[in-house]
Amino acid sequence: MINYDVIIVGAGPAGIGVASLLSQSDLNHLILDKSEIGNSFLDWPKNMEMITPSFPSNAFGQMDLNSIFESTSPAFAFNKEHLTGDEYAIYLSGVADYRELNVERNNEVKSVSEEENGWAVETQKGTYSCKYLIWAAGEFQNPKIENISGKEHCIHSSLIKSPDELKEDNFVVIGGYESGIQMAFDLVQNNKKVTVINPEIIDDMETSDPSRVLSPYTYTKYDTLKSSELYTEIIGEAETVSKTENGYKVQLKNDTSLETESKPICATGFSLVKKPIEHLITNREDGFPKLDEKTDELFEKKNIYLTGPSVRHDDHIFCFIYKFRQRFGVIVEDILLKEEYKKENVSVLVDGWKRNGMYLSDLSCCGEECVC
Amino acid sequence: MINYDVIIVGAGPAGIGVASLLSQSDLNHLILDKSEIGNSFLDWPKNMEMITPSFPSNAFGQMDLNSIFESTSPAFAFNKEHLTGDEYAIYLSGVADYRELNVERNNEVKSVSEEENGWAVETQKGTYSCKYLIWAAGEFQNPKIENISGKEHCIHSSLIKSPDELKEDNFVVIGGYESGIQMAFDLVQNNKKVTVINPEIIDDMETSDPSRVLSPYTYTKYDTLKSSELYTEIIGEAETVSKTENGYKVQLKNDTSLETESKPICATGFSLVKKPIEHLITNREDGFPKLDEKTDELFEKKNIYLTGPSVRHDDHIFCFIYKFRQRFGVIVEDILLKEEYKKENVSVLVDGWKRNGMYLSDLSCCGEECVC
Repeated sequence: MINYDVIIVGAGPAGIGVASLLSQSDLNHLILDKSEIGNSFLDWPKNMEMITPSFPSNAFGQMDLNSIFESTSPAFAFNKEHLTGDEYAIYLSGVADYRELNVERNNEVKSVSEEENGWAVETQKGTYSCKYLIWAAGEFQNPKIENISGKEHCIHSSLIKSPDELKEDNFVVIGGYESGIQMAFDLVQNNKKVTVINPEIIDDMETSDPSRVLSPYTYTKYDTLKSSELYTEIIGEAETVSKTENGYKVQLKNDTSLETESKPICATGFSLVKKPIEHLITNREDGFPKLDEKTDELFEKKNIYLTGPSVRHDDHIFCFIYKFRQRFGVIVEDILLKEEYKKENVSVLVDGWKRNGMYLSDLSCCGEECVC
Repeated sequence: MINYDVIIVGAGPAGIGVASLLSQSDLNHLILDKSEIGNSFLDWPKNMEMITPSFPSNAFGQMDLNSIFESTSPAFAFNKEHLTGDEYAIYLSGVADYRELNVERNNEVKSVSEEENGWAVETQKGTYSCKYLIWAAGEFQNPKIENISGKEHCIHSSLIKSPDELKEDNFVVIGGYESGIQMAFDLVQNNKKVTVINPEIIDDMETSDPSRVLSPYTYTKYDTLKSSELYTEIIGEAETVSKTENGYKVQLKNDTSLETESKPICATGFSLVKKPIEHLITNREDGFPKLDEKTDELFEKKNIYLTGPSVRHDDHIFCFIYKFRQRFGVIVEDILLKEEYKKENVSVLVDGWKRNGMYLSDLSCCGEECVC
């Protein structure tokens, strides 16, 4: 059985990012992915783009919003602001090459179990062991439709690869966040009638936190959408979906109901891919894994960490790339200190990560902006 | 004669930005502008947009690229990434209100002279005196067409407010940087033939410094442009422009010449508006003002500072907003220390400015990016 210092599960932005920091030490690592580097991005609908704009500003002390390692910038590589999924996957592969990461592709993790000195990771192709395990399996592979009775009649937005190929004339979209608005926009562009069921009034949201409100990229689409006669928005929550003679009926909690000829589209987000480590996770009330606030280790477990969009502390959401990258350094620092790396040397690394937005330990920072 | 601690000339991003930092102390200040807050931006062609994308990321330790003061974000105010000039002027006014800045509009500075304890600033409406003077008069009011004989036959790109109103069918654009490519793009969009004379091959430029290469925003337009039959690019430098029977002739240094029916459009940039302080400036070989590297004071002058896009140190260019804002703190720190503010208190302010990208003293940082 091969033994590694660190095994990282998932070769997406979180896995490649945290491994890039780790590759600045002499610990050895293995990244396991059930498919390819950036597989989730390769799976995106073809017209979907990153909602955070890329800009090559590293050289002046500000990381590209979509960068996962210092001195790299998707905007520099592609000369554009909004990368497609395919392009972003190429960027991730570029970083993996540049940092000479050890990635094993097409090998799915089946189970993870505790051992005396770390973790046994059973995969399709055999079992590996490691002292530290970093779970970076992401969310996009795991579409979420919760709390809707009759959800088998719905289709999740992420499974619609080309909205312009949909044949019907009217659609109901459940959920009005980034992907709901983008789906509605694409459909209206194709002259379809769309009704979005949105639990919140977008224009009434007062926060500036980009994990909670529409990004400017999507808002610009929303602005166009609102002025279209093909677009209707209903504030409420879907409760039941049922099959009717000519299509489907969506019943809202507030007694409103909608008829539609096509399967309702659920733009209801994603959940953490976590099956092989589910038995190790304690959930918070909201269903996200409970983590050690200082180290991002799973609650009351040692040497197993979570990184990526499912990281939550209190009400802080780290779901954008530029936000969850801020916790990469926290994990790597913890591992290096446990391995008895000299504190001075670790501090030099941490200072660099801080400069590049890869290390956030003080969560009190996340204040609001003034309206100007 | 009214006496101020600090007078700032110019109510654009540099003036409003540096004054916002200063307003964190109890020094009093006056901002003088010959017109309005953000006047240059109000003067932009109506379809022109910021080339740096805005995104509300302050709350997670990364300033909006176009923000000039902490906790503010044009993207948050306008829900879009690329603001027009009019919108950006509204943002600047918003910051001036928020920081309660003392702005005197419609009062042009005529001359500046040295006094025993500072500076006398003679304006249209009278003379003011101050101990410290910050020159933030900007560039956009001062279009530059240099080294072209017959330049009186040309028109500067910034004077063309609506490219879609131009009547002729073919155009020559001298200069292929941001504004040259954008002008060409707008003209080709309107079915005009355009030849751009570009001193450098855009795709061959190896640097990632966004002050030297096309921004991703403009590059995307360039990409479209290159595939249009209406677009021609010639690598070279214009030497002479002359009037012909049917239009104009542009002679290049390399013996090529071009005929065009319309006035050649010079997208040749801008120079610092500096007349009232010209006698105080020592120029570098490249024509930019020579500055004290530590404080941004004019060369061998005390208590008169330059801020804005004309700031140069060695070969570092600070011409984007997010780049020149990095020197705001350097100036304000120097003033506070001269005023014998306690070092500890100044340090607290400087730490905040550093966190927000408003303080860059170590110019060795500006490294290159890797190609991924």
